[in-house]
Amino acid sequence: MRLLVIGGIAAGLSAAARARRVDPSLEIVVLEKGAAISYGACGLPYYLEGRVRRADQLIVYTPEYFRKERNIAVRTGARVVSISHARREVTLDGGESVHYDKLVIATGARPRTADFEGATLPHVFNLHTLDDAERLKAYLRDNRPKSALVVGAGYIGLEAADALRRNGLAVTVVEQAPHVLGRPDAELTTAVRERLQRFRVELQLNTRAAQVADRELAIVATGLRPNVELAAEAGVEVGRTGAIRVDEHMETNLPGVYAAGDCTEALHLVTGRPAYIPLGTTANKMGRVAGANAAGRRERFGGIVGTAIVNIFGLGVAFSGLSVDQARREGFAPVTARITAPSRPGYFGGKPITVELVADAANGRLLGGSVWGEDGVEGRINVIATALHNRMRVEDLAQLDLAYAPPFATVWDPVLIAAQQLSKMV
Amino acid sequence: MRLLVIGGIAAGLSAAARARRVDPSLEIVVLEKGAAISYGACGLPYYLEGRVRRADQLIVYTPEYFRKERNIAVRTGARVVSISHARREVTLDGGESVHYDKLVIATGARPRTADFEGATLPHVFNLHTLDDAERLKAYLRDNRPKSALVVGAGYIGLEAADALRRNGLAVTVVEQAPHVLGRPDAELTTAVRERLQRFRVELQLNTRAAQVADRELAIVATGLRPNVELAAEAGVEVGRTGAIRVDEHMETNLPGVYAAGDCTEALHLVTGRPAYIPLGTTANKMGRVAGANAAGRRERFGGIVGTAIVNIFGLGVAFSGLSVDQARREGFAPVTARITAPSRPGYFGGKPITVELVADAANGRLLGGSVWGEDGVEGRINVIATALHNRMRVEDLAQLDLAYAPPFATVWDPVLIAAQQLSKMV
Repeated sequence: MRLLVIGGIAAGLSAAARARRVDPSLEIVVLEKGAAISYGACGLPYYLEGRVRRADQLIVYTPEYFRKERNIAVRTGARVVSISHARREVTLDGGESVHYDKLVIATGARPRTADFEGATLPHVFNLHTLDDAERLKAYLRDNRPKSALVVGAGYIGLEAADALRRNGLAVTVVEQAPHVLGRPDAELTTAVRERLQRFRVELQLNTRAAQVADRELAIVATGLRPNVELAAEAGVEVGRTGAIRVDEHMETNLPGVYAAGDCTEALHLVTGRPAYIPLGTTANKMGRVAGANAAGRRERFGGIVGTAIVNIFGLGVAFSGLSVDQARREGFAPVTARITAPSRPGYFGGKPITVELVADAANGRLLGGSVWGEDGVEGRINVIATALHNRMRVEDLAQLDLAYAPPFATVWDPVLIAAQQLSKMV
Repeated sequence: MRLLVIGGIAAGLSAAARARRVDPSLEIVVLEKGAAISYGACGLPYYLEGRVRRADQLIVYTPEYFRKERNIAVRTGARVVSISHARREVTLDGGESVHYDKLVIATGARPRTADFEGATLPHVFNLHTLDDAERLKAYLRDNRPKSALVVGAGYIGLEAADALRRNGLAVTVVEQAPHVLGRPDAELTTAVRERLQRFRVELQLNTRAAQVADRELAIVATGLRPNVELAAEAGVEVGRTGAIRVDEHMETNLPGVYAAGDCTEALHLVTGRPAYIPLGTTANKMGRVAGANAAGRRERFGGIVGTAIVNIFGLGVAFSGLSVDQARREGFAPVTARITAPSRPGYFGGKPITVELVADAANGRLLGGSVWGEDGVEGRINVIATALHNRMRVEDLAQLDLAYAPPFATVWDPVLIAAQQLSKMV
């Protein structure tokens, strides 16, 4: 009995490792098209920055580790070009066929740069794979550019801007939307703009980066597109999000074929519908469930609430659930409250933290939250995320028994203050 | 219509302020026996340490503020000696009677030092009120003691030890139990002991502090006892915990008489039974509900999950819910998992964080958690607290969509790792 896994970064290796734990006798083969496996892609900006000194510090496990310690065969440079589910085999680009009994598709995503003019120029980069980061590092070393253009003010674009600026480059970020981070939130956009200005990074909104040819260096970070073609051609169903559709067991419409990670959609627990929010944490969780089930279990992946966090020159910005605009588009009647309060007492280095909560006016249910500030952002968004998982009402959120002592928080945590405010409106 | 509030620190003033918002026409009188009102008692150790320079920095509001801005009369030095509910009046120690229509009892707690020999000696202190802290500061200034004995290795004792040590005193902490922080947890006790040793604070467990007479300075921090006598003599029912019993509206058995804060028990949402866990956060939440209801609303205080946190020379230690021992005593069949993992990547200053989770073997429900480490403790315990409020199962906890980016966390948050481990056992 062979489990074949296509993809050896986050979801694929989580699936393989979990399948091994579930079934010690299973034959497990992982095919990774790239040269490296098991790296923390979220660490790439910090490798670019130089905070992470060597690329191998981002690599969690090697193929040798998997072979020796887990009895899992990992082949790098193994690009799958087709899947024949009828014959239960995949074909590699060299023509070789590999049989499977169970299959996990973890083909990931790729940057949305195809429609970007100049994407193939030698000074235009993505920051998606370890290879991207290494080529970019080499380019910086060899060409010593003085300036850089970053296309896209999403997570990766802003992290890249931070990393390049800390390397002394003059950085301009252009974003075609009138706001940053995909959120039409004027106050947040102002907070991010001010932070960028403080570090002398220029932000141009409502701007299409038409010309990159005359730039010294450009990084294109305009989002991700799921790698679904291989699966789709084999008859795997793709959902309305454009990513692979799976059931709660991570199984596709083809029996015995599972999908996980950045190529796969996930149930959004706030909307109750599938969403495509490619993130490493979700990839790992999906992979674990796909691997367990491919090895014979019947586990469930509950879903996501859309939690994300980014650090922009020391300003933490985090989201979970729906923004007010998303809530409206999803048919809710959202009400919001936004407060700014200290993250902890001033005598313990507290900083202002802004918390916005969104609730359904119909029943008081929490729909989402945004948090930003220099301190304590991750803890607050995680409370909101946990509340969203549990469909809490803001009235109950306002009474959460959160930890308090002056080194850590204020007696009324900012999340509680925001929830109190919002509970007056529902 | 007059609302009378006995007690002007946390619960009492929360009640008064909230009642004013609910009913602008209500007459509101607060009687506080001490000289100061509205101070953050949890900040007293940091005033002792010197990090908080002046006592007035701990004072949130003054009587003048309440009078002018809130139209609330606050009388300090006003000690109530009896309540006659039949006559709807209280008597002050000077003999004056004050009428009420609604009453909120927020008489707080007092240190358990009555049975402690030497408690009245001039060099023996509590650290409970602002007055305690000011007298202690004056004693330090005038007598310049070289050493101090701290009796009790609970939150206050350990915070006091930290504060005194940072003032250059040689500090010994004696604790009659074989463990610290009221938790029979050998690993935690070792972690705290090592932390104290690193800062050259001596910890003597299994030790009764028989002799304090020959010490230069002693701080007694052996826990709190609720101030219920006044209420009990007036016919207010006291629960099995020894604190005032209230319903979910914070009303006592006497109609129109509410109680809140450190004199009051609260529903523990894990056990489903009342508990006495006096903390400032709970006092404020209770006070709000008591005040709203005394002013005519019908609001509910949901209850607590027993969350607490303390900083011991940079080591954060936090609890929520039940320890394994408490769970056993409550009749559960607890299983536990304990892991130590980085709070965030090493290249962002991550430190080891220990997370223990306790679940009910019968159904996988989370019963409690403990977290300690130098970084990220408050965020993790708050996730656990929120999960406890929602009666989450560890299997679901393990799939929480928590925030991840390298500056903030690891891709598998320590809470998720612990929950994964524990979910194998239920």
